[in-house]
Amino acid sequence: MNRYELHYPLTMDADTKKMMANAYGALLREREQGVTGYYNLPEDSRLLVEELQKEHPFDDFDRIAVIGIGGSSLGTKAIHSFLGPKEKHLPIHFLENPDPVELRRTFAKLDKDHTLFLVVSKSGTTIETISIFKAAIEHFDLQLRGNRHIAVITDVDSPLHKFAKEFGLKNFAIPKNVGGRFSVLSSAGIVPLTLAGFDTTKLLQGAKRMMESFFALEEEHILQKAAFIAQNWPTYRMNVLFSYADELEDFNKWYVQLWGESLGKKDRYGKNVGPTPIGHIGPVDQHSFLQLIMEGPRDKTVSFLCIEDFEESLVIPNLSLPYLEKTDFVNGATFGRLVYEECKATMRSLHSQEIPIDRIVLPTFCEEGLGELIAYYELLTSAVGAILGIDTYTQPGVELGKKILKKRFI
Amino acid sequence: MNRYELHYPLTMDADTKKMMANAYGALLREREQGVTGYYNLPEDSRLLVEELQKEHPFDDFDRIAVIGIGGSSLGTKAIHSFLGPKEKHLPIHFLENPDPVELRRTFAKLDKDHTLFLVVSKSGTTIETISIFKAAIEHFDLQLRGNRHIAVITDVDSPLHKFAKEFGLKNFAIPKNVGGRFSVLSSAGIVPLTLAGFDTTKLLQGAKRMMESFFALEEEHILQKAAFIAQNWPTYRMNVLFSYADELEDFNKWYVQLWGESLGKKDRYGKNVGPTPIGHIGPVDQHSFLQLIMEGPRDKTVSFLCIEDFEESLVIPNLSLPYLEKTDFVNGATFGRLVYEECKATMRSLHSQEIPIDRIVLPTFCEEGLGELIAYYELLTSAVGAILGIDTYTQPGVELGKKILKKRFI
Repeated sequence: MNRYELHYPLTMDADTKKMMANAYGALLREREQGVTGYYNLPEDSRLLVEELQKEHPFDDFDRIAVIGIGGSSLGTKAIHSFLGPKEKHLPIHFLENPDPVELRRTFAKLDKDHTLFLVVSKSGTTIETISIFKAAIEHFDLQLRGNRHIAVITDVDSPLHKFAKEFGLKNFAIPKNVGGRFSVLSSAGIVPLTLAGFDTTKLLQGAKRMMESFFALEEEHILQKAAFIAQNWPTYRMNVLFSYADELEDFNKWYVQLWGESLGKKDRYGKNVGPTPIGHIGPVDQHSFLQLIMEGPRDKTVSFLCIEDFEESLVIPNLSLPYLEKTDFVNGATFGRLVYEECKATMRSLHSQEIPIDRIVLPTFCEEGLGELIAYYELLTSAVGAILGIDTYTQPGVELGKKILKKRFI
Repeated sequence: MNRYELHYPLTMDADTKKMMANAYGALLREREQGVTGYYNLPEDSRLLVEELQKEHPFDDFDRIAVIGIGGSSLGTKAIHSFLGPKEKHLPIHFLENPDPVELRRTFAKLDKDHTLFLVVSKSGTTIETISIFKAAIEHFDLQLRGNRHIAVITDVDSPLHKFAKEFGLKNFAIPKNVGGRFSVLSSAGIVPLTLAGFDTTKLLQGAKRMMESFFALEEEHILQKAAFIAQNWPTYRMNVLFSYADELEDFNKWYVQLWGESLGKKDRYGKNVGPTPIGHIGPVDQHSFLQLIMEGPRDKTVSFLCIEDFEESLVIPNLSLPYLEKTDFVNGATFGRLVYEECKATMRSLHSQEIPIDRIVLPTFCEEGLGELIAYYELLTSAVGAILGIDTYTQPGVELGKKILKKRFI
């Protein structure tokens, strides 16, 4: 189980308590009324995993290509980067951004006969995804009808679903009431990860534990953090997630999408609201962004995310180099401890400046901890959204750009 | 040459003009008085390149390991990612973050006899860098005395410099008056990149053109942008750099460091000031962060950075898939054009919401354009710093964390 520490100057007065109770009530209603379905995914996806592990309907493959963007890829990538990939896993390649140079590079790593292509799009008509799928069809000369190396993951009855049915391609459904950025524990993430050999059962168990614990009112810290952030966003305009492991860089991106698309909204009075998410990696970004947090404007809360045990014993040798003796104080420590202590030292220095901080400690790179963390961030996002009084699950602001794009081509 | 477009609601009144003139004067004085030396690097580093290209003092190598963090690696990485690496270049591996899992992975790609190890540290005592260097010494069983596979890049007379002299290792100097985050065009970046076969002459030419043009008062747009950002940071608290190419992701990180460490400061009255830099990649982050920019608080300026010609002709096939005809409007276009037009469409949709935007267009992935862009961002940073009345070139805020870290080990 993860550890959660909160050092926010939150006044637990009647107003705050009411706000927290209301947020909790709102999430409970969302779950009961099916406003959003992500609360049930840890349970609902369990069967999917069992099925896929028993037998899957595909011809032999030794690598997976996920064709998807945004909510259709970020969560899968986050888990993939965090948990491995280890030798026992099949490699997953992501055809995500339509950057042609990168696409060409990724195509070169795939082949027609051993790649399982998974086309993931909630709406089924994402312009980048379908265009990349078309390019893959041409590049690899893929036959469509009944191809047991292609599957789609999309909304039931979406155009992509209909296309798949027409050609007899395997189709996995994303529940209607699960938005892209909340879909990582649906088929969108669970299918590629399970097929690649990741232990998605444990991942779902971790998430389930957190969902149940939250609704059993045992995770009050989530409501406290949500209340502070929602109350104080005009002051603390940014939340910096400072993650202390390279393996968390894609998790940071997932968090930025989840938070940014969910919480950057017009509220019920038409006012533009919402805190801005920023992801950083420690210790490397201590050499980049820390100065700004320490001495720049007091407009940020900072969340630290760190790994207690890297399970990698690489040690800083007991080596004293002439003139460099000043650095010897870490000799004999593992690099894992250095990273962990740097996180702690940075926390303390921010705390001394009265910057609101919190910390999440993961025991190690394990599935349960990550599943729990995903659920934690989803619940936190919903709770902040509820307090802000916004529609957390839509993204009306991206439509205008799509319309303008279309006009530029016709 | 790059194109720069500014759509900021800047009022060019007497105050603004005076502010711009003062900023220009401040930079001119910095250059003349040697307050910072980066202005001269495009010229000063030319000789270094010629020397290295004629002959270098190392035994045979076919890959390079840069051991450095922050200002000692970010710029080199940015250039390395943007320009290639192509087949003609030697691979550069970065030993940067002390994350033990990632370190172990990178060690596995190196070997003792064919790797040139470059230890880069401005101060010469960066704890992560020296610790990783020690681990490399042990892991590869490196003999130190006279080893022609090791060089250091550091301040003259730094502890690392003295260490190198003691062991007869090759040493390259970073000029005293060039800080880490402004050092990419010094030996810190130029040595690894030149040795890996990148055309650093052209890179420096591009930077030189921009420096000369700025000081010849031919780049007024830089002063305008600086004036707007410095005047309005309490309103527009963030600048989002939205870069439309995967190859620009490391450039974004370089920009975040340059801007964040330089501009997040206490001003001369002791007030905490400075705009926050955020890097995003398009089109992928249109599916992540765009909603927040469009409908969230109006607290951001957005800079678009795009590539006019990807020089990669990958085309979206003229393929009409049943039920997916809605996506056919881009058929026949190159992916490069899709990316470019998405940038434009996003710009227009933000502009329609009166969000301050600007755009930088690079002709393609070329050395001159990138050199120019680096100089542009350095000058912009200095100009904003001058107007804010801060010390752009120090980072006092990171010292406390270092002290606390040390205490936790002894």
